[in-house]
Amino acid sequence: MGKLLIVGTVAFDAIETPFGKTDKILGGAATYIGLSASQFGIDSGIISVVGGDFPQEYLNMLNSKHIDTSGIEIKPEGKTFFWSGKYHNDLNTRDTLITDLNVLADFNPVVPDKFTDCDFLMLGNLHPSVQMSVIKQIPKRPKLVVLDTMNFWMDNTLEELLEVIKKIDVITINDEEARQLSGEYSLVKAAEKIHRMGPKYVVIKKGEHGALLFHDGNVFFAPALPLEEVFDPTGAGDTFAGGFVGYLASTYDISFENMKRAIIFGSNLASFCVEKFGTERMENLSQREIQNRLKQFKELTQFEIELN
Amino acid sequence: MGKLLIVGTVAFDAIETPFGKTDKILGGAATYIGLSASQFGIDSGIISVVGGDFPQEYLNMLNSKHIDTSGIEIKPEGKTFFWSGKYHNDLNTRDTLITDLNVLADFNPVVPDKFTDCDFLMLGNLHPSVQMSVIKQIPKRPKLVVLDTMNFWMDNTLEELLEVIKKIDVITINDEEARQLSGEYSLVKAAEKIHRMGPKYVVIKKGEHGALLFHDGNVFFAPALPLEEVFDPTGAGDTFAGGFVGYLASTYDISFENMKRAIIFGSNLASFCVEKFGTERMENLSQREIQNRLKQFKELTQFEIELN
Repeated sequence: MGKLLIVGTVAFDAIETPFGKTDKILGGAATYIGLSASQFGIDSGIISVVGGDFPQEYLNMLNSKHIDTSGIEIKPEGKTFFWSGKYHNDLNTRDTLITDLNVLADFNPVVPDKFTDCDFLMLGNLHPSVQMSVIKQIPKRPKLVVLDTMNFWMDNTLEELLEVIKKIDVITINDEEARQLSGEYSLVKAAEKIHRMGPKYVVIKKGEHGALLFHDGNVFFAPALPLEEVFDPTGAGDTFAGGFVGYLASTYDISFENMKRAIIFGSNLASFCVEKFGTERMENLSQREIQNRLKQFKELTQFEIELN
Repeated sequence: MGKLLIVGTVAFDAIETPFGKTDKILGGAATYIGLSASQFGIDSGIISVVGGDFPQEYLNMLNSKHIDTSGIEIKPEGKTFFWSGKYHNDLNTRDTLITDLNVLADFNPVVPDKFTDCDFLMLGNLHPSVQMSVIKQIPKRPKLVVLDTMNFWMDNTLEELLEVIKKIDVITINDEEARQLSGEYSLVKAAEKIHRMGPKYVVIKKGEHGALLFHDGNVFFAPALPLEEVFDPTGAGDTFAGGFVGYLASTYDISFENMKRAIIFGSNLASFCVEKFGTERMENLSQREIQNRLKQFKELTQFEIELN
């Protein structure tokens, strides 16, 4: 079993969907990644920054999931990063209403000593210079480095992003971002071009249309589970990434066959995340529920055809 | 092995994509369905109508694939149905430039005697009154009746369409059409509502995002094969339906497990259809190519996870 280090935002979100709206609730990429990865019973830690307004009870909740929060810097005079968004009726698109960077604006990540020997490093969506700083603080290269990013960094800090992308093993981005980064419409061609930028593994997230894993001419696809209701898509991509890297860390096996399973586990966990507002569903999830839904994934995708 | 009867258009298409354009070439739903189903070595026949301008060589080509064309009425004084369309750059959307119904405007389908005992009936996308007329001409209900339709008939002849939908076993429509027909955004809920209209099986086609099969609380998903290039999507949905029903006819097995395989075979054949303009690729397809691509489908979708 490997030790997992997660870098990313720990934040407040205020979310509006066609089904309701929330006040400021717990959010952030590292939060979702951590909660998802914690399902595999691994040792993990988060590196992030919050303000003096961040409730201790949230940290306690993360600790109760065996997530080490000693790498979450608390700036007593500052305020926690805050994002507010409103989803459209189809839940596939949203408007960002507020982005208050607050303490995130001058975040200098510090990797605690006990995590400089991590085996798995998950670089959540953040400024590429923060991601690079963490990579440089780890003397022995981890077994696997996974990076998530978004179009905002491609638009504004492309050179720095490309430097980070050179140094990682797996990139997870959505289909539109893969097209933007590569300049190719076909996702097959996009993945090939992104391979050449550095990552040996390219994971393309297509939301309700599933996810693709590309590696060395091979491709694997996991659908999203068709759901009666999607309540709140916030954090689904991070939950997917957390399930992916959490499963790999728990098995300590980065073969392509095992990455297929990791993609399925990631999709499986993301299907829970969207059932309630924010992190609520991920905080209250049993192994029995996860196993039952894995059974649904098998029934959804597995068939028997003899090849001639 | 079952006998398959196909009702649908046999037509001329003129197609423009970002990669080029064609003059009038062979097209039509029944043509694509027939060519796709013919890959399974079954007895099939087409019921349709063409004008005096329809080349004998096209009929000969269909006959060479063991497709009976005696049910294709030739109206010497009339002109063949003509459709012309232009695809946008993403190939997911298109503008219809010309729709000349011609001989299709007053089509009265006549089921030849030799097909009144068909085991499988595929009602291609056509006016629901034509589809109903064919159902009524078959004295003994076929083992399976599959219907394809589109939003045009929902907009203009909904009552007649709903009468036909009551009488069939399987409906194949795309995701937007499923939403329109049911009034539900969630495809799971849409399928449930459509079940209650009659069909025990609901197949929802999502184009490049694959296809879903719903039956009695079960759901199966087949992705579209990720392709480097999609050249011309025309006929892909009909090719999918033809592969689906052709495989079922060839195996004479309409269990849910076998329908899963039929969905995979349909997706497999559709992945060839889009590689060249019109029917070209489907006219020249080897069993070896089909088997090789089935292997790709297995690698794309199959995984091993032990359930606890």
